[in-house]
Order: sequence, then structure tokens, then C-alpha cells
Amino acid sequence: MEHRRRLRDLGIKIGRFETGNLNSITDIKGVKVGHKTIIEDLHNGNFVRTGVTAILPHSGNLFKEKVIGSSYVINGFGKTTGAIQIEELGVIESPIMLTNTLSVPAVTEGTIRYLLEQNDDIGMVTGTVNVVVGECNDGYLNDIRGMHVRPEHAIEAIMSASKDMAEGCVGAGTGMSCLGYKGGIGTSSRVTTVDGVNYTLGVLVLSNYGKKEDILMPESNKRLYMEPERSELPDGSIMIIIGTDAPFNERQLKRISKRAPFGLSRTGSSAAHGSGDIVISFSTAHRIKHYPSGARQSFSFFVEDGPVISNFFEMAVEAVEEAIWNSLCRATTIVGQNGHTKEQFPYHLFE
Amino acid sequence: MEHRRRLRDLGIKIGRFETGNLNSITDIKGVKVGHKTIIEDLHNGNFVRTGVTAILPHSGNLFKEKVIGSSYVINGFGKTTGAIQIEELGVIESPIMLTNTLSVPAVTEGTIRYLLEQNDDIGMVTGTVNVVVGECNDGYLNDIRGMHVRPEHAIEAIMSASKDMAEGCVGAGTGMSCLGYKGGIGTSSRVTTVDGVNYTLGVLVLSNYGKKEDILMPESNKRLYMEPERSELPDGSIMIIIGTDAPFNERQLKRISKRAPFGLSRTGSSAAHGSGDIVISFSTAHRIKHYPSGARQSFSFFVEDGPVISNFFEMAVEAVEEAIWNSLCRATTIVGQNGHTKEQFPYHLFE
Amino acid sequence: MEHRRRLRDLGIKIGRFETGNLNSITDIKGVKVGHKTIIEDLHNGNFVRTGVTAILPHSGNLFKEKVIGSSYVINGFGKTTGAIQIEELGVIESPIMLTNTLSVPAVTEGTIRYLLEQNDDIGMVTGTVNVVVGECNDGYLNDIRGMHVRPEHAIEAIMSASKDMAEGCVGAGTGMSCLGYKGGIGTSSRVTTVDGVNYTLGVLVLSNYGKKEDILMPESNKRLYMEPERSELPDGSIMIIIGTDAPFNERQLKRISKRAPFGLSRTGSSAAHGSGDIVISFSTAHRIKHYPSGARQSFSFFVEDGPVISNFFEMAVEAVEEAIWNSLCRATTIVGQNGHTKEQFPYHLFE
Amino acid sequence: MEHRRRLRDLGIKIGRFETGNLNSITDIKGVKVGHKTIIEDLHNGNFVRTGVTAILPHSGNLFKEKVIGSSYVINGFGKTTGAIQIEELGVIESPIMLTNTLSVPAVTEGTIRYLLEQNDDIGMVTGTVNVVVGECNDGYLNDIRGMHVRPEHAIEAIMSASKDMAEGCVGAGTGMSCLGYKGGIGTSSRVTTVDGVNYTLGVLVLSNYGKKEDILMPESNKRLYMEPERSELPDGSIMIIIGTDAPFNERQLKRISKRAPFGLSRTGSSAAHGSGDIVISFSTAHRIKHYPSGARQSFSFFVEDGPVISNFFEMAVEAVEEAIWNSLCRATTIVGQNGHTKEQFPYHLFE
Repeated sequence: MEHRRRLRDLGIKIGRFETGNLNSITDIKGVKVGHKTIIEDLHNGNFVRTGVTAILPHSGNLFKEKVIGSSYVINGFGKTTGAIQIEELGVIESPIMLTNTLSVPAVTEGTIRYLLEQNDDIGMVTGTVNVVVGECNDGYLNDIRGMHVRPEHAIEAIMSASKDMAEGCVGAGTGMSCLGYKGGIGTSSRVTTVDGVNYTLGVLVLSNYGKKEDILMPESNKRLYMEPERSELPDGSIMIIIGTDAPFNERQLKRISKRAPFGLSRTGSSAAHGSGDIVISFSTAHRIKHYPSGARQSFSFFVEDGPVISNFFEMAVEAVEEAIWNSLCRATTIVGQNGHTKEQFPYHLFE
Repeated sequence: MEHRRRLRDLGIKIGRFETGNLNSITDIKGVKVGHKTIIEDLHNGNFVRTGVTAILPHSGNLFKEKVIGSSYVINGFGKTTGAIQIEELGVIESPIMLTNTLSVPAVTEGTIRYLLEQNDDIGMVTGTVNVVVGECNDGYLNDIRGMHVRPEHAIEAIMSASKDMAEGCVGAGTGMSCLGYKGGIGTSSRVTTVDGVNYTLGVLVLSNYGKKEDILMPESNKRLYMEPERSELPDGSIMIIIGTDAPFNERQLKRISKRAPFGLSRTGSSAAHGSGDIVISFSTAHRIKHYPSGARQSFSFFVEDGPVISNFFEMAVEAVEEAIWNSLCRATTIVGQNGHTKEQFPYHLFE
Repeated sequence: MEHRRRLRDLGIKIGRFETGNLNSITDIKGVKVGHKTIIEDLHNGNFVRTGVTAILPHSGNLFKEKVIGSSYVINGFGKTTGAIQIEELGVIESPIMLTNTLSVPAVTEGTIRYLLEQNDDIGMVTGTVNVVVGECNDGYLNDIRGMHVRPEHAIEAIMSASKDMAEGCVGAGTGMSCLGYKGGIGTSSRVTTVDGVNYTLGVLVLSNYGKKEDILMPESNKRLYMEPERSELPDGSIMIIIGTDAPFNERQLKRISKRAPFGLSRTGSSAAHGSGDIVISFSTAHRIKHYPSGARQSFSFFVEDGPVISNFFEMAVEAVEEAIWNSLCRATTIVGQNGHTKEQFPYHLFE
Repeated sequence: MEHRRRLRDLGIKIGRFETGNLNSITDIKGVKVGHKTIIEDLHNGNFVRTGVTAILPHSGNLFKEKVIGSSYVINGFGKTTGAIQIEELGVIESPIMLTNTLSVPAVTEGTIRYLLEQNDDIGMVTGTVNVVVGECNDGYLNDIRGMHVRPEHAIEAIMSASKDMAEGCVGAGTGMSCLGYKGGIGTSSRVTTVDGVNYTLGVLVLSNYGKKEDILMPESNKRLYMEPERSELPDGSIMIIIGTDAPFNERQLKRISKRAPFGLSRTGSSAAHGSGDIVISFSTAHRIKHYPSGARQSFSFFVEDGPVISNFFEMAVEAVEEAIWNSLCRATTIVGQNGHTKEQFPYHLFE
């Protein structure tokens, strides 16, 4: 298989902020990503091209030590689960899971089982746990009706999480299509310095939207294709995960999440009707204990006067755009269900 | 087992609007309710006291002929799934399912399988399907960690739906507790006449909140208990389903949904922190075809000037309060997990 | 004029939490309330029965030292201004002003002038200021079309703010009607102890909703009137201001605000269509400097696990209900525009 | 004064949809726009560079015949008034007014006076009226603290409304700055055909955001400026008004409104912290009578399956981007308050 390069390897930079060391959401201290990729050609003629991706805000017990979180719905033709409680309580207490649309229940169940195993108090001496699972529809390349993702695949994705994350046709991205080409998992990061301290914002996307005719090329903004594409696909979606080690509260995280469509737009999307374009964001700067030691907890947050939060807005816009391009640049051609093929994005188009 | 009476059988009426024939959400033409009750004493010493309830807005193919719907989060410590798409598109396209908190994925998967079976276009030539599942935590009486609800139980609940619905310890209500007593499923309805035509609003609740000390008695508003109860329970929740055959759009349905806390309040609740108090509402007056015959669809909605919608607000408040009391009046004493018992509500307290 | 007593003076208590010393929103350290009452019988036959009420979260420069704030719309048939920025930034930076519906612009302008006077940097070296003004429609008793409130009246209300606040037919409450009787301004408070420290939650209402037939009496919950009232009034509204010295963030304040309908409901309201029922809440526990001294600010907030926030929910429910009853108990009969009269609530109805 | 051309006159097209005849929001049948421009050099050394813009969804009595409307807050550091009721009721019942931030009350009061004059039932036999006023901060060029806009200026803007609308430094746009140059009022439109019938979507912007370094050029996407600009300005804002004659309901209009940030983003904005970026949208396809003739009203709306609404999403994205560029291309250099100058956008930068 051809080694696929990232956007910067091709000489193209997005925006003016510096990237982190890995240009990845895993540049954030403690954050890990794991994939379970499921590729199988079944005897009954069906093609399994799907999987699960797990983003771990930290490597400890997420239920016992939650992170501050938020969400934002760009377009809600989607089945992401867990957002109601994130909005009410402002915390995330599970790995953030991604998979195909019809496998949300299997992945939720697997993640619940993982968390029950880890926490024997859940459902006994304390309440239940809120699991976050996002999804896109990979039915063009994958036998989505077969529901081939099982609960144990979710656990495998979580257990395999590491700093060294793969992009493209891996995990939940295995069967996804983007802008008429093969899409999937992409990531990017940005860093800034406040009062002499470095802070990182990282983005991971599961890209599955758009047609060739939508593409706005980076740095030239030219449309590649003038003729409308006759698409066999229903409208696709994108899941956007934004993490940071900067001290933002849940309201501030939502503000940052609302900048995701600014980055998405610059790739050519206008968030078509049938898309589930959903943002989940978190900050690792504070941990919220499930069993707090007192009635009060102390926090330190960035003030909003001054340039700091606006810089994070712009970092989010840049990293979302670049993460999408990385998902396209790293994905390889996949042949799947019903004889469908999605070609990898040809690098010569950047010229 | 003692035959348990409803609130009106005990001589107590809530409010000034008339009830429908059955005083039930199934008074709405086409609406059916089914339960799958799971009660088992396992050899390993665990007690299964749980189940699934299915509310069918109509008996046809809900994916192909959707109903207008809305939702409202009173308190979001809950795991209800499906609300994002209801809010974006204003329609409900699956049975509305209720179960225990950790069984949401099993019930979602079962309902997806039911809908895939019914619709071979889903995930092939059309997009995926949005399933609505609400929940409360029955872990006090039920071995919730055992995850005993399986996908096929959801299908059984759907298949058993009828006009003649049971209340109390049935379906999702099997293991629920309310206001210190045994809670569960309750229903109530109200009717009104507009321009000579009768319209019905019906409510179904899954009640699982509150302590004895919270109780506000109907018609007397007296607190029954002055001493705080030492609760072994985490805060509970309530799911409130509101249906109507009146022609309201999704915005109007949300307005009606926002009156649910007014009824809930009158029973004594102030929606404690740990509650997932969530409202799902629908109108059967119009059907939204998945494959529309043209670019436009015609509707007729109630205008908001004049008394009509305010009457529906009040009908919702009354029916929510009465449905909760019916869930208490109809439930019977249950012995369950960890030797826990919840007593049935003693009728003499109404005196 | 008859001295009008408060609900507790009549021997009726709402709920189980203790009140503060004054049973008033001004029990919160630093909070003051001022009224400008405008009563005039014009030569042209019009009757002015209106005014302005100002709630000051603290007595310093609110623009330079903001308080954390939130808002919640129970029913949005209303013209409250300032809520968009409160939701975005989570702070309140002006006195919270109340007046009649058509006088919102005059009161906003007066409050802006007050704040410009106090802050010569606004609009010069810093941005503009967000003023919060709520309203109800007093057009039944007041010549509302005459727009008799002028900007200077807003400043007078602010300047007159004190700890010793009046209730009933004062300030913005002068011309309001509630539950078929004379309404207006009412207040109540609750206290609780956390880790040995006392915390206060206070409520101020501007009551202007409902008909006699809606009344649910405190402690007996009986409807006073069975026959529908033929109302000459469009649906009315209520503004509910909730303050506390407890350390809650903007998300937690919104959760508390969402309990206001629980208190409102117990007086008989179901939030009729034409009502602007809006909640504004704030915490004085932290001040947010307009010119922060560094990039970060430290906070200490109540954790949500445990009973603390649920107690504040219940305190809010109780105080809202009692503040409404105080507005009714303290208001006196007013004769106004078009020969309209609203009678004061007769105490004998409590018997 | 130099005649300033529009973007298309300079040979640059945005997107693939056709424009309407005028490439203006006034391409929508019935829609008119009026400006009141206030330019004065005061003896006290202050410079007045401000004004009012009125968008009329139709030329009849808007209170008596409302249009369906919605709003969306991109970033809520803003003082737009009227949005709460639009969200609750889904209608707009006044002209949509734009002005400077501190003149929102004067313009609201003027618009109320205009509507009271037109409707002698308001505040008498019917309720009050909800006025929509948006704003940006023109304090860099205008003596904003002087509050020079008076209520009668709002009425003048309404009375002057016509099909032939001016762009650039007119009305509310007189003192606004955008992307480091002179901004102000801009407009653009797109048309599409559904079932043989033409439908128009039009956008009007009041542009007042961003720095030179933010600019993304149309068609080339190059940043013009690499060096950060030392700005004397607080963050600016943009008001975006979207109208259409296509039959969309309030939920669908909100979906369209949420595409405005996609167009805004492509000019280089990432919606800085201090911006009040707010969208107001309306459809003229149906009128909602204040005094309806019956209990029900009939509507016909576009279905959402199929390409229609996605086309409108894309039309909105294109028209927002082009309207912003038109505001820049049409504005002329203005010298104002404190010796400040904003240069007009130099056309040679497009080369």
C-alpha cells in the first residue's frame, strides 16, 4: 500500500499558528486515540469496511475523574448519543467513541461494559454513566445493515489507544467518503503561548461529507470541478472532536466548538441537509472528581477579555480545516459493498 | 395480586378538562402502547425487575410516514437518544421506546433491527433511521448492571402494542420508584373541542423520581411527610411522552412540552440534580412521507392567537400530573435486587 | 392606605427552607433594589400607572466588576433585552431593570446613560455595555401607549436602590395584574448552610399573569373559582429575578433558573400563550473584572454531586412561589386607564 | 465622490448559483430597504458618522400580517433585541432595523412609535409589538457616546424604504469598518427554480468585523497580509439578514441561518470574541394574520428530502460571502471621530 502523506508533507500549510510536535490531537498531554479497523469480505457477498475509533481525554478512570466538555450541533441529521448530559453537566465521563451510524448501540454497549468493569459502583452505590458516541454513515462502502461492529470492538479500540495515532482508512474512518474521494480519520493541532506557558488545541475528524464539486482547494480556493457530480450517496456527515489543555470552562468550550463550521466551510462544505455535523469538545486542564472531597472545587480559567480566546477560535478553525485535509491525504482507495469504490485523493490536484 | 385502581377511581380529579374515553394516551386515534416486562430471580442471587415500553404514534410504517415531533429537556442528567435529529428535522420516525438506563443500547439496536426488517431501503438507497429511546434508572430494584434487556425484547414490546395499555409495574416501569413508593408507567388524557371537532392530548409517563418528603397531595397540596427521608437511592428521573391528534407544528409541540414541568411540579418535584427529566412530544395530525410526492407539502396548523394553544398547555399540565398519580396508584409492591422493596402507594393517604 | 401584610404575616409558610432576615432578595449581601413609581391622572383623561424597578447585584461599578449570570425563557412572548450576551458570556454588567413593555427602550437608554456617565471608557477605549431590561404589559391599568416612562426614571430607580425594598404597587409593579387581582412586585428568600457557611437565595418577581380561575391556593391547592373568568386582558407575564451569594457558575445558574416554572406552576399558572415569562439569575460570589489583571481568573464553585445544588433548586421553587404570593398580598387596589380597576387580593380567601 | 463598483463589476463571481436581477435582497418580491444616514461635524469637535437601516419584509402592515422568521446567534457579544419572541412564535412583526450599538433603544422606540401610529389596537385591545433591532459598534469613526440617532431617524429610514437600495457608507453602515477597511451595508441574492417556479434568497449585511490580516481573498483564498495589524479597534461584528420568498417554516429558516457562518468564514473571519454576529431570517411565502379568520391556518412548505433545502443552504453561503464583499467594494473612505480614518478597499488588491 502506498504510503500516504499529510497535507504539510505536500508543502501546504493552513493558517498562521504553529502545529504541535505531532500535528495531532495526541499532542495534548494525556490524550490517546485507538482504532479498531474491521475489513472483511463475507461469503454472502457483503463487504465489511467499518470500525471504531476511541478518543481518551486522559488515561485514568474517566468516570471517576471527568473532564470539562461541551458539544455543538452544526447540522443535526445525526445519531450522536450522550450530548444531553454533556450540556446539562458540562462534563465528559467516558471515552469519546466514533463508529458507523447503525453501530452506535453496539459501541455504546461495549463502552458501558468497559466502564462497568472499571467501576463496580456504577448502578450500585452511584448513578449510571453517560457514554458519548458519534457516527457517520459508511453505507456506500460498508455493509452497514449487517451491523458488524460488536460491543467488544469498542473495547478493543479503547484498549489500543496510544499517542501514535493512524489516519485515513482506520477505525471509524475505514468506510467513509469525503468530497467525492476516500475520507476517514484526520487530525491536526495548533499551539500558542500564554504568559510563557504553551497550550495546545487538537482536532480529530471523521470526514464523510460532500461531493467533488464542493471542493475548495487550500491556499487557492479554486473549485476543482465545475460540473455537478451525479452522486449515488445520501448526504454525508462529519464528526469533529476538539480537545485542549487550555483552561476553558464548558461555556467557553462551546464557543470554541461553534468555530468548527468556519473550518469546515473553507473545504467547501455548506453542511447539506442530510448531514450529521456534530462537534464534541473537552479540556484536560481540570478534572472533576465523581466523589469530590468537599462541597466546593477550585478552578482557574482563561479570562475572555484580551486576545486569548480569539486565538483559540482561530486555532480551532485552522486545525479543523487541516484535519479534514489530512483525512483526505492519508486515506487510500477502498473497494467495498455493492462494487462501490472510492478513490484516494490524488496529490497532483494540489499543483 | 391486588387490583390497583386509578386516581379517578379513588374519587380524585385533576383539573378542569375532560378526559378521553380511556383516560390514556391511546385515546389518540392510531396510538398504541406495548410492554415487555422482564421479571426473573436469577440463580446467582440477582433480581431482574425491568422491561421495555413502546409507544407507537401510528400503526403504519413510521419510517416511511413520520410524525411531527419535538423534545424538551427539563433536567439533562439522562441518556435519552434520538433528540438531536428530532430537533433538527421536527419529525419522529420510530416507535418511542422506554427502558432502563443501561439498556438504551440494547433497545436501540432492537428497534433498528425492527426498522431494517421493515424497510430494506435504509442504509441502501436512503439514509439511516433515527431511533428514540428514553430511560430511567431502575437500579434500586433491578440488577441493572446485568443488562438483561436484549434487542429482541424491544421488538417484543413493539409487536405487543395495543390500545389497551397496562399501567404500574409493567414494561420499562417494572423496576421504577417514585416519591418513595413504587412507581412506573402511568397515563392520562384530556379532550377539547375546536370548531366542533374533538381533539385529544394524551400523556404517558415513566415515573422514577423523588422522595416521600417531596409529595404534594392532589387536591390538598399538603405535604404528607415533614421529616426528610434517608434515601438509599440516587436521584431519579421521569420520562414524559405527550401525544396529540391536534394539528401543531414542531415549534408548537415544544411549547406544549415545556408545560410538562408545570404538571410535574404539582406532585412535589423540583427536578433534583441527578434526574433525567425529558419530554418527547408528537402530533399525529400530519404525516411526513419519507419519499414525498412533490417538492412541497401542505399543512394546516392551529393558529396561536386565541385560547386554543393555551388550552392545550393546561391540558398537558393536568394530564402530566394525573399520569404520574396513575403510575403511583397502579403500581404494586415489588421486592427486588439487594433485598430492596418498594411499597405500593397506600390509598388511605388520599383521605 | 391600608397596610398590606405579607404571606407569612398571614400565617402561611411555603416549603421547608428557612427565609433570610428580610425574606427578600436584599438578604443577599450587597444586593439593593430601587423603584421609581409613576402615578398621574392626565388632563387628557389618560391614567399613568407604571414605573421602573432596578435590581443591583452589588453597589459598585457593575460594568467594571461583572457578576456571573444566566437567563431562561419559560415562555418567550416577551421583549426582555440583554439575554443574548448573558448567554454568550455568562455575565451581567448592568443593573437588572424592569418596566412596562413599551418602555423597554426608554429604560435601556436611561441605563446606558447612567453607565456611560459612570464609565468614560465605554465606546472609546473599550466596547459597549450590555443592559438587561425585563418587562410586563400593564396596559390594562396604565396608558401604556403614552410611553410615559422616560430615561431619567430609570436613573432615578437605580439611584434610589436600598436594602429596604417595597413590594406591591411600586416601580414596575405599579400597574400590573396577577391571577385576577392586583399584582406587582414581590420578593422572598431562602437560606441554607454548607460546611458551616450560610448561603442565601433570593427572588424578586414582577407578577402580571393569570386569571382568578387559575388560582391554586397555597397549602390547600384548592381552586378558588370554578367558573371561567371573562377576561378583558390579553395574557400576562411574569419576570423572575433570582440572586444568590452561593458560588455557582453560569451553567449552574441556568439549572436553578429552570426551576422557576416549578414555583410558578404551584400558584396555578400554566404559562399561557401570550406570556413573557422570563428568568434572570445571578451569583455575587465572584466578580469578573472588565480589565482583568492576568490571563486567568480563579474561581471556586459548588460541586454538583451531593445534595447542595438540589437544595438550591428547591429553595428557588419555594421562593418563587412565595414571592408571587407576596406580590399579591402587598398590592393595593388600583383604579386606572379606561376606568379599569384591579382589586387587591382579599385576605379572607386564605381562610 | 468616486463611483464604487460591486464585486461582480470587478469580474469576480462567488459560487455557482445565479443572482437575481438586482443581486440584492430587494429581488425578493415585496422586500424594500431604507436608510437614514447621519453625517455631521459637531462644533464640540465630535464627528457623527452613523445611521439607521430598515428592511421591510413587505410593504403592508407587518404587525397585522406577520412573516415567518427565525434567528441564529453566531457569537453573542451583541445587543440585538427581539430575538426571544421570534424564537418562541416563529414570526417577525416589525421592520428589521439596524443601527449602532448604543442607539438600539432610540431605534426601538422610533419603530414602536411608527407601529403604534399604524395600529391603534396595540396595547389597547391586543397585546404589544415585538420590534427587531440589530446593531454593530461604529465607535471608531462615530461619536457613539453622543447617541445621535433619535427615534424619528428610525421612522425616516422606514419611510424611505424602496427597491433601489444603496450599499456601503449608508444608513447603519455609515460608520462601520470591515477587515481593516471601510465596511457597511452590502447585499446579494441567488435564485433557483423548483418545479418550474423561480425562488429568490437575498442577504443584506452590516459588516463591521475583522482586521486586514484576516482577509481571505475571493477566488484565490490568499491572505493579503501576513503581518498582524495593530488594531485600535475592539473586535467588531456583523449583522446578517436573510430573506426569501421560498416556502420555509421557522425551523427550516433557522437551518438556513446556521449556514451564514459558512459564508462569513470564507472572507477570513473566525468570529472573534468581541463580536455580535447575529442572523435574522424571514420568508415572505406566507403571512400570519394578527387576527386570524379561523382556528387553523393552511401552509405549504418545501419538503426536506431531495436537493431543495441543500441548494438554499448553498445559496445562503454564497450570498453572505458576496454581500460582505459588496459592502467592502461599495464603501468609500471616511474620516471621523478622534481623527480616525478608514480607507476604502482598494480594487487593485483583487488583481
